[in-house]
This record gives sequence, structure tokens and C-alpha cells, in this order.
Amino acid sequence: MDEQFLRADGRALDELRDIRITRQFTTNPAGSVLVEFGNTRVMCTASVEERVPRFKKDSGEGWLTAEYAMLPAATHERMPRESMRGKVKGRTHEISRLIGRSLRAAIDLGELGENTIAIDCDVLQADGGTRTASITGAYVALADAVATLKQRGVLPGDPLRAPVAAVSVGIIDGRVCLDLPYEEDSRAEVDLNVVMRADGTFVEVQGTGEAGTFTRAELDAMLDSAADGCEQLFALQRAALQ
Amino acid sequence: MDEQFLRADGRALDELRDIRITRQFTTNPAGSVLVEFGNTRVMCTASVEERVPRFKKDSGEGWLTAEYAMLPAATHERMPRESMRGKVKGRTHEISRLIGRSLRAAIDLGELGENTIAIDCDVLQADGGTRTASITGAYVALADAVATLKQRGVLPGDPLRAPVAAVSVGIIDGRVCLDLPYEEDSRAEVDLNVVMRADGTFVEVQGTGEAGTFTRAELDAMLDSAADGCEQLFALQRAALQ
Amino acid sequence: MDEQFLRADGRALDELRDIRITRQFTTNPAGSVLVEFGNTRVMCTASVEERVPRFKKDSGEGWLTAEYAMLPAATHERMPRESMRGKVKGRTHEISRLIGRSLRAAIDLGELGENTIAIDCDVLQADGGTRTASITGAYVALADAVATLKQRGVLPGDPLRAPVAAVSVGIIDGRVCLDLPYEEDSRAEVDLNVVMRADGTFVEVQGTGEAGTFTRAELDAMLDSAADGCEQLFALQRAALQ
Amino acid sequence: MDEQFLRADGRALDELRDIRITRQFTTNPAGSVLVEFGNTRVMCTASVEERVPRFKKDSGEGWLTAEYAMLPAATHERMPRESMRGKVKGRTHEISRLIGRSLRAAIDLGELGENTIAIDCDVLQADGGTRTASITGAYVALADAVATLKQRGVLPGDPLRAPVAAVSVGIIDGRVCLDLPYEEDSRAEVDLNVVMRADGTFVEVQGTGEAGTFTRAELDAMLDSAADGCEQLFALQRAALQ
Amino acid sequence: MDEQFLRADGRALDELRDIRITRQFTTNPAGSVLVEFGNTRVMCTASVEERVPRFKKDSGEGWLTAEYAMLPAATHERMPRESMRGKVKGRTHEISRLIGRSLRAAIDLGELGENTIAIDCDVLQADGGTRTASITGAYVALADAVATLKQRGVLPGDPLRAPVAAVSVGIIDGRVCLDLPYEEDSRAEVDLNVVMRADGTFVEVQGTGEAGTFTRAELDAMLDSAADGCEQLFALQRAALQ
Amino acid sequence: MDEQFLRADGRALDELRDIRITRQFTTNPAGSVLVEFGNTRVMCTASVEERVPRFKKDSGEGWLTAEYAMLPAATHERMPRESMRGKVKGRTHEISRLIGRSLRAAIDLGELGENTIAIDCDVLQADGGTRTASITGAYVALADAVATLKQRGVLPGDPLRAPVAAVSVGIIDGRVCLDLPYEEDSRAEVDLNVVMRADGTFVEVQGTGEAGTFTRAELDAMLDSAADGCEQLFALQRAALQ
Repeated sequence: MDEQFLRADGRALDELRDIRITRQFTTNPAGSVLVEFGNTRVMCTASVEERVPRFKKDSGEGWLTAEYAMLPAATHERMPRESMRGKVKGRTHEISRLIGRSLRAAIDLGELGENTIAIDCDVLQADGGTRTASITGAYVALADAVATLKQRGVLPGDPLRAPVAAVSVGIIDGRVCLDLPYEEDSRAEVDLNVVMRADGTFVEVQGTGEAGTFTRAELDAMLDSAADGCEQLFALQRAALQ
Repeated sequence: MDEQFLRADGRALDELRDIRITRQFTTNPAGSVLVEFGNTRVMCTASVEERVPRFKKDSGEGWLTAEYAMLPAATHERMPRESMRGKVKGRTHEISRLIGRSLRAAIDLGELGENTIAIDCDVLQADGGTRTASITGAYVALADAVATLKQRGVLPGDPLRAPVAAVSVGIIDGRVCLDLPYEEDSRAEVDLNVVMRADGTFVEVQGTGEAGTFTRAELDAMLDSAADGCEQLFALQRAALQ
Repeated sequence: MDEQFLRADGRALDELRDIRITRQFTTNPAGSVLVEFGNTRVMCTASVEERVPRFKKDSGEGWLTAEYAMLPAATHERMPRESMRGKVKGRTHEISRLIGRSLRAAIDLGELGENTIAIDCDVLQADGGTRTASITGAYVALADAVATLKQRGVLPGDPLRAPVAAVSVGIIDGRVCLDLPYEEDSRAEVDLNVVMRADGTFVEVQGTGEAGTFTRAELDAMLDSAADGCEQLFALQRAALQ
Repeated sequence: MDEQFLRADGRALDELRDIRITRQFTTNPAGSVLVEFGNTRVMCTASVEERVPRFKKDSGEGWLTAEYAMLPAATHERMPRESMRGKVKGRTHEISRLIGRSLRAAIDLGELGENTIAIDCDVLQADGGTRTASITGAYVALADAVATLKQRGVLPGDPLRAPVAAVSVGIIDGRVCLDLPYEEDSRAEVDLNVVMRADGTFVEVQGTGEAGTFTRAELDAMLDSAADGCEQLFALQRAALQ
Repeated sequence: MDEQFLRADGRALDELRDIRITRQFTTNPAGSVLVEFGNTRVMCTASVEERVPRFKKDSGEGWLTAEYAMLPAATHERMPRESMRGKVKGRTHEISRLIGRSLRAAIDLGELGENTIAIDCDVLQADGGTRTASITGAYVALADAVATLKQRGVLPGDPLRAPVAAVSVGIIDGRVCLDLPYEEDSRAEVDLNVVMRADGTFVEVQGTGEAGTFTRAELDAMLDSAADGCEQLFALQRAALQ
Repeated sequence: MDEQFLRADGRALDELRDIRITRQFTTNPAGSVLVEFGNTRVMCTASVEERVPRFKKDSGEGWLTAEYAMLPAATHERMPRESMRGKVKGRTHEISRLIGRSLRAAIDLGELGENTIAIDCDVLQADGGTRTASITGAYVALADAVATLKQRGVLPGDPLRAPVAAVSVGIIDGRVCLDLPYEEDSRAEVDLNVVMRADGTFVEVQGTGEAGTFTRAELDAMLDSAADGCEQLFALQRAALQ
């Protein structure tokens, strides 16, 4: 590694932050996980409702929805509470939808029966990578919720298909860096969020180059780094679920 | 104590639940506390803005506001997220206003200078007494935030006047019970929330008897029990702040 | 009484303002009352719907809801209309909920059958004590609505349990004053709203000491004064209903 | 008059209902009028703000706005409160805009200086013709408010140009009827609202024939009847203002 | 014509702008028309839903609703998008309601069966007369939608009663001018919108004289001009529908 | 090409639909383009405001925002209008944000001076690929708006950096297909939207595999196809702008 390029927290370019996954963080929801990617801390819960939204009625299939939100004091400067503003920001909607699509890739809706799983990801402390931490933690909460449903005997089959995890990668001063904290994220030229399934396939790839576009070679290097990062996250999820 | 009347959790009628106050629960806000009253867990933060709302402009005084909210999965049955419904419930408004008034009794707005302290109480897990836990924890977050402001040298004086704490009392099967968890709260005939200052005076007294009215003697007994409970809470706050 | 302490309107400390209760103020609702506490004037109506909200469906019980609002020109300075702002203020929610709880203490929901009574309290002119005037007047409107329902033969039983009335008390310059107009309310150190039932029990006690806390002795003196005030209000309600 | 055509309330086809105009109905606004057209009762107020909206800033001119609303229990069946629904109905907006345009025809904005007059028309009881009663009553409240402003010496000139009044006309069973109560309004084939100035000119003419279109001859007959009705209303306004 | 009075676009006082009606402008809705009154361009669609709103359920009748909106860039200065502001302007509501009433006069709801026709009028470019262009174009879209429904065999009868068209007239410098573009509309003393049916009867007459009232003689002259204009519009609709 | 795999519209797998770009579609905005990708038709406008949002004030830089919306009758089944629902859907927000980021990559905000360009993309007819058509058309509207600003002499420099275009690619029955119409989009296993700059770099890459994840090889094939498609779109933009 280039001596002149030290990441502020001393990590190698391809190194994840400290990841901690705490199950049963709270006890009311069927699954409840506190996930930490460094200083980013997200409470991920999976709640079960024994009914489906209208568009799934009488389909024999279940559904999974997700909502993401930041607590007002999660960021460095306190942000106005979305419920008090009366509108939800576009960014919030966008991340909620991303989490929902990602987690639906982890399950087989047909095996879920006419049940709905509601994922909530509430950011207690934000330091970059809140959406990727949310997805990674929510998978563990989902696995716990499915286990609960199976114990209760309400599931017709086994809806869990494969673990899903996510990580961010960016290009900073021309170098590919894995798992960006806020300080790096805000000065990255390019930002890529990758959601993978444990079978090595991609669920979502979202790269954005507002502050500078990226070449195909840079995209390839970022995808390589993200795939390595996800491998490590799958191992951490497995360890947490044992 | 009457053998026939055992509280579900084995407590005496005048006994608080286990109370835990964790400071610096997160690091972005000036004050951040996790307060636990048994299974009720609330993250209380105090954020500082170096400006005041319009009605305080050029008054030489500061202001303190508070917002209370429940995470959707905090309760036994998941509740819809207020930001997504597009409206805040009356109950939420009512508790936010109560917390604001209570904490303003703890400070001297004139000594605060033209700064605003924003209190956020977000319930991670709800098991009764969320408003009283919020007030009790928010005082500790407020004390930490004031200390931070003093260190930064932005305060003209010392705005902290006296600690503030709160507890609930109820009448269940004719007996006065202190600090009700959800199971007791939902079958109490009468519910009283009391906010006190450490000098033994009352800040707020809110008694409601929808399921059954209460006599003056019952009110007196409840006030006695609440005053005892608050004494214990002041001791716990002092211990936490050392 | 202390000569040096003359209330601006010449009343004794424990004297109510002129109270007027006009029934059948309008003719569309089942009950319609104009209540006046001095210059405070509130139109209180009780409308009947022969159905219940979802949470009461098939319970065999009825429900009672209440909404409070101020006309924009009710106050000294015109206030923006809540419907045009698109949001209802926290204060409005808080008072609506208080009126609802208070009036539910006046009836037996089981005797109401699956009917809903909607109480509306619209303040035409505000001069302090609008919530207590609302409760006092709404009881009379409710009694009229119940009589109407009985005549129509839609009630399974007699849902009226006991009259309910409310009054405010405050401490001004150290003295307990009954039934505060706006001018007194705005400089009171402590403000207590008390809702009672005609059997002498309490329905709600809401004391707030934002501008200065209060001792137990002060609370006791305020409760005494409020109980006396409510006695007089019950007499006025009875007279109006004859 | 045709014997076979008796109006339900016994009036002649070209006869107004009983009109009552009560000034100083409330005391906080600069002008406050209770206007009654038979059983239709509207509280009309005119409040003064010593500033103008942005689009009039530094124009040397004033402005006049109007808001119309129905209390929830004003109609036979209680209607949901617009503030609680979170949206204002199209009908409400439409009538508010009509009242604003009509009253602006009564004043010279240049003579008003940079002041705004806010007209509020709140329907206490609705029995047809609420918009025409509102305009007729609001003119009287406006005249009182202007007199108040002149006494306070804040007006550069005399903004009152001419009285404005309004009445409805309809065709029922082929006959032109003046000033329709709700029962007639709901079965009229055609409905015309006419706003006039006391100099005999028209401010607004709004005819609608959803349930049946109308010929030019019918329109002419309705305009004649409305002009007669407005003449009588101007006389009643003059009497009220003396 | 008076030489000194040349309209900016060279038209005679009683001359319409160039009117173009393009059917099948888009292909998803049952009827889709681009209507142009000079530079004013409105996309008018008629969509069919095989159900009715609640208040028409089991009535055997259908319903017709209409919504009007401006694209943000339709006007000279871009206007904020109503969906982003979170509220619809009063003007928008008012015009939507006018279009709905006008088009309902063109059909027999009983012959429609329990189907709903939704008219959408979206202004692509605004240059005065958007509401009259909308009504004129929407009739053609409606006729196409009805033809589609008849082909599908879902209609019990023939709901089209008579064509409906609309035009604006104004008084500018004392002269009656037909079909005002924006530049004329904004300086007209009086503005009259007239909706007629092809049998020569009136559906709506809306005259407003905010900037100056109007006499009966002026109203008569404007109605004459509007009737002539509508005659021409009916001919253009017939031509388009062949 | 595989004979057994015929696209419904007869196109080759790597063939764009018919693309049409019509400049000056309307005349009020600085740039106005109708873009058509087959049956998908979007009106893209670029409006200029000579001010910046607060967060850019005194930065010497300009800003570019974008809003995307569908007309209610754009889709096969009419959709409720977002302004009437009172909330904007998450999908709408997400696409608006994507268009904004993409177009900001086409300009140098520093060369724009303190001006704001507002892009509006209103879908008149939807048949898949509305977001990619929007970006492709909006670039042309933006180029026209910049030219207008330069003519007016309000620009300090030349803000246009490079053309930006976008296209969708999907995997259907295992084959990579370019530029999906609705019918293909709804049954694609994987969907990738790619935004490129004419220098061959990527601005955004958004791949989603809700209905089935994708391998790295599949991602590579889709990126190749998208890059070819964008090349063709840049040529069409150049032709349109000549």
C-alpha cells in the first residue's frame, strides 16, 4: 500500500470497519438487531403481520416491505424530524425502497404464505454507509423473524433463500476504498453501493459519479473490492446467527 | 404488603423498576443518554443550535424544545410510522409538549443566551412509562449538553437550575402502584404522571381517570407515592452524572 | 380578602366569571349549546352517528370523540386557520383529547349501543379557560343529544352516568385565583385545570408550573378552590337543563 | 302568484328570507358581524394586519383576503373537520376566493395603505345561501374595520368605495325563486349567485346548470330577480350601519 | 372595426384564435385530445373505470370527474409543482370543478351505467383561456371514450346528450373582446367564461369584475359574443369528430 | 440472432426503439424538448431562475434541480394524480433525484454563475424507459437553455461540459435486451439503467435484480450493450442540436 495514502482511521484500502451485529437488541419485534459499521449504528427490526397488502391478496404469496429513517440527532448537525415536517425526503424513500428490494431477494415470497414482514431500519448514529449497514443487519433480523414464524407454525414452507449483505466502495484521490465513513464519503469522486447474495450474484449495483464520472476499469475495480467486502460480511452474519 | 396482591414482576407497590441511565450513548449530540425503566428504553438527546426561534429573537434569552416519538417496532404490535402517515398523532404532540415544559423548568432561559436546546426522546422499546422515562433521561442529557456549552464558552451564565424527574403512579384493583409497566398501565383505573424538581416542588401533575374517577384521598396517596419515587430518581440522576 | 389584591374584573379570588349556558343555539346537531365564561364563548355541539369506529366494531359498545378548535378571529391577534396551514397544532390535539376523555367519564359506553357521539367545541371568542368552558358546555350538549337519541328509541339503555364540569385555577402573585381570564392566565405562575364529576370525584387534574413550580400546599389550595368552582358549575348545568 | 306553487316557507317567489345583521357579535376583531339569512347563520369578521403579503410589498397598496369555512356541525349531517382531514375541499377554496374578489370590489386598495384586511366567514348553521350571506355580512364587518382603522389614524385615505351584497336565485319547477334555502337549492335545476355593488353594477355572476341548462331568457329573469334582491340587501346593510 | 383598437395578434374583436383539435394524441386513455386555442395547448384525456365512487354505488348511474393542472413550465415564469408543494391551489380546484360540472351537462349519467369517466386536462402551454380550451377539448375526448365504451359493449345506453364548448370574453378599454390570450386577460377589466351546450342553452356563466364592475348592458354584449364564439367551437368539434 | 427469440416489436436484441427528439416543443421555457423512445413520450423542459437555493448562496456557483412526474393518463390504467393524493411517491422522488444527478454531470456549476436551471420531465405517455428517455431529452433541453442564457449574456462562462444520455438494458429469458418497452420491462429478470457521458465514462449505473440476481458476466454483457446504446443516443442528440 502507498505510504502517502493513509486512511484517516488507519485502515487498509480493502479493509472493512469494525462490524458488530447484536441480535435481540429489543424484544417486541420478531427479529431485532443492532448493527454497527464503525460508528454507524442502525437498529434493524423485522415485524410480522399475518396479512398481505391489497395487491397480494389471494395470491398465496407473502410480502416484505422496508422503511428506513434517521433519528434527528443521528447526524453531526441535528436534522428536522420528517414526521414534523409532514413530508418524507426523497433520499429516505430511495433508501427504503432499496432495502425492500434487497431483502426480497433473500426470500421466496411463495414460501412465506400470506404474511407480511415489515423491516424497519432506524439509524441511531450516522457515520457513512447507513444503507449498506441497514441491509446487512436487516438480513439477520429477517432470519430471526423467519425462525420465529416457523416455530409458531404459521409458515407453509421455508422462505429464506440466501443471505444478502451490502457494502459501499468509493474512489478517493484515484484509489478504490472499501466501506466509507462519512468523512471519506463526502469527498469521494465516485460512490458505489453493492448488494450481493451469498451465492456470489448481485442483487443491486448502484454507482453514482456526480462529482466525477468513472471509467469501465474503475467500475471493475470497485466491483472486485465490493465482492471481497461482501464475502467478509456473509461470514460475520453466519457467525452472528450461530 | 398484602399477600394476595403480587405485582406481576414481584415488585412492592412503592418500588421502582430497575432504572439504568447510560450517558454518551451516541456521540454526535451534545448530550446523549439511554434511559431504561425496566423494559422501557428511550434514547434521549440534547442538541444545541446557536440561534433561537423567531419569537425569542433579540430577547437575550434562549429556548428549549422537545420532540418525542416511538420507533415503529417499539410496541408489541408494530405501529405505522408517523412520517409515512403524513401526520403526527395527538398523543405524540401531547407528550412532546409535556417534555418541553418539564425540561424548561430545569433551566433559566436567560442564562442560556440566544441558544436553543433541542431535546429528542425516541422510544426504542415501550413497556409503559415512556413519557416519565423520557423526562428523567432527558434531564441527564440536558446537563451534559450544558456542560459542553460551558466548555465551549458560548454560555453567558449557568442555566441549570435544578434536576427534574418524572414517574407514573396508578390505582389498580384499589391499590396505589408506582411506576407502571404496560401490562399494569392498561388495566389501571386511574393514571397519574408527576414531574418534580429536586427541591421538592411540582412541575406537572397530570391525573386522568377515564376508566374510573378518583377521590381526593386517592389523589393524595398517589402524590405521596410519586414524590417518593422522584426522590429515588434524583439520586439515580446524581449518581449517573458523577 | 386582601384589599391590595383586586382582580382586574373586580371578582373575589374564589368567584367564577358570569357563566351563561344557552341550549339549542343551533338546530342541526342533536345537542347544541353556547357556553360563556365571561368573554369566552364556545359553541359546543353533540352530533350522533349510528355507527362506531373500527376498534369498537362488534363490541356492543358506543364511542364518544371530541374536537376542539378556535375560529381564526377568536383571539386578540388573528391566528392562521389550521385547515389552511395543513396541520393541526399540538395544543389543539391536546385539548381535543382532554375533552374526549372528560366527556367519556360522563357516560356508560355500554348503554350507548353501537352509536358514536361527536362533540365539537368551536371557540367563537377566547378570553382564557376555553378548555374548561368547552367541557362544561359540552356536557349539556351531550345530555340533550342523549335525550334526543332516547326519544328516537335507538338507545339500548341510559348512557348518562353523571354530569361533568371543569374549571381553571391559578396562582397569581402568590394567591389562588379561580377561573382565570386571558389576562390573568398569561401572568399566572401556575395553572391547574380540574375536571370533576358531580359525585365529587376527579376525572382529570392537569397542573403545570412552567413559569414557576408549586408546592404540595399550593396544589391542595388550588384543588379546594377548583372543587368549589365545579360545585357551582354543576348547579348552573342543572338549571340550564330544566 | 300561482296557487299551485307554494314555497315551503310560504314566501313569494321574489321575497328574501328574514335577514338579520348583528354588529359587534364578538369584540376581538376590528369588525365582527353575525349575519342570518333565515336559518343560515354566518359569523363574519374583518381583522387588520399592519403589513401586506409579499406580492404587494412596497406597492403602496394594501390587500384583502378572505377565508370561508363551515363548522363541522353546521350541516344536517356532521361533516369531517377540514383541519383534521389535512386538506381543504375544493368547494371551500372556491367560495373563499369568491368572497375575496367580491370584497376587494368594495374597496380601493390604494387608499388602504400597506395594510391587509383578513375576512373570515365561519358558517355556524347552514341552510342554503351561505356564500351570499357571507358576502353580505362581510361587507358590514369590513365597513366597521375600516372605521376602526380610520379612528386609529393608520389609513392614508378612505378605502371604502361602495357597498357589496350578494344573493342566490334559482329555477325550480320552471319558476325563478329568490334566496334559496337548502331544501330548494338541492332541487333547483339552475342556480345563480349574483354579487352586486350598490351603484347597480355587477361584481360577479355565477350561474350553473348542472342539473339542467338554462336559456338566455331564463338567465335574464334570474338577473332581474337578483338585482331586486340586492337592492333590498343594500337597504338592510345601510340600516345596520347606522 | 375601430382602427385605433388593434388587438395585438391582429384579430377582430369577435374572432377566435386559431383552434386545433388533435384526436388520439396519446393511445392509453379511451379518449385523448390535444386542443390548441392559439398558443394555449392542453392535453385532454378521458379514462374509464368500471366502477363508481361510493356516493353512486347501487344507484344504477355512472359518474364523471375532472382534474385540471398546469405543468410547471407551462407559464412564462416556471411555477412550483403542486405535488411537491403538498397542496393544490384554490384556482386549480376551482377549474377542476368547473370542468367536471360542464362535462356532466354533456352526458346522461343514467345511460352510463355504473362506470366512471375521469377527465384530465393538463396544460402543456398556457396563454390564456386554459379552462375554456380544456372544456372544449375534453368534450371531444369524452365523445371518443364513449364510442370506445360502446364498442366494448359495456354501456347500457347512449350517454352523450349534446356537445359542450366554452369560451372567454372580456372587456378591454371598454370593448368586448372574444377569446382572450394571456396578455389581454391580464389587463381586462371584466372577464366572463361561458360554457354552452350545442342546443344554445347555457351550462355555466362566470363573470368577474374584480378590476372594475360591469353593467347589465355590458353583460348582455359579452353573452352575445360568447354565444357566437361557442357556435364556431361546436362546428370545429363536429369537424374533428368526423 | 436466435430465431426462436423474436422481440415483440421485431427489434434485434441490441437495437434501440425509434428515437425522436423535437426541440422547441413549447415556447415559454428556455429549453423545451419532446423526446420519444418508441411509444414513451416525455416533455422535457429547462427553465432558468436567476437565483440559487440557500445552500449555494454566495458560493459563486449555480445549481440544477430536476422533477419527474407522470401525467395520470400516461399509463395503461389511469393512476391517481400525486398532487391530489397530497404525497409524492417514492418512485417519483427516486427518478427525480437520478435525473438531477445525471444532468449535473453534464455541466460545470462554477461556469453557471448564481443561476438555477430547473429541469422538468413530464411523461405524456409511458411505455417503459421513461427515466432514460427523460435524461436523454433533458440534456437537449439543457443545451438549448444554456444557449439562451449565453445569448442573454447572463453566464460568466460556458457551463456545458459534455452530453449525457441514458438507456435501459435487461435480461429476458437469459438474453441481454437493449431499451426495454413496458411489456419487456415487466418480465425482465434483471434491469439496468446506465447514464453515460459522451467521453465514454459512466455517470450512473443502477442495476436491480429483484426477480432474480445477476452474475458478474451478465453485468458485463449488459454494460457493453448499454455503452453501445448510449453511443447511438449521443449521435441522435448531436443531430437534433444542429
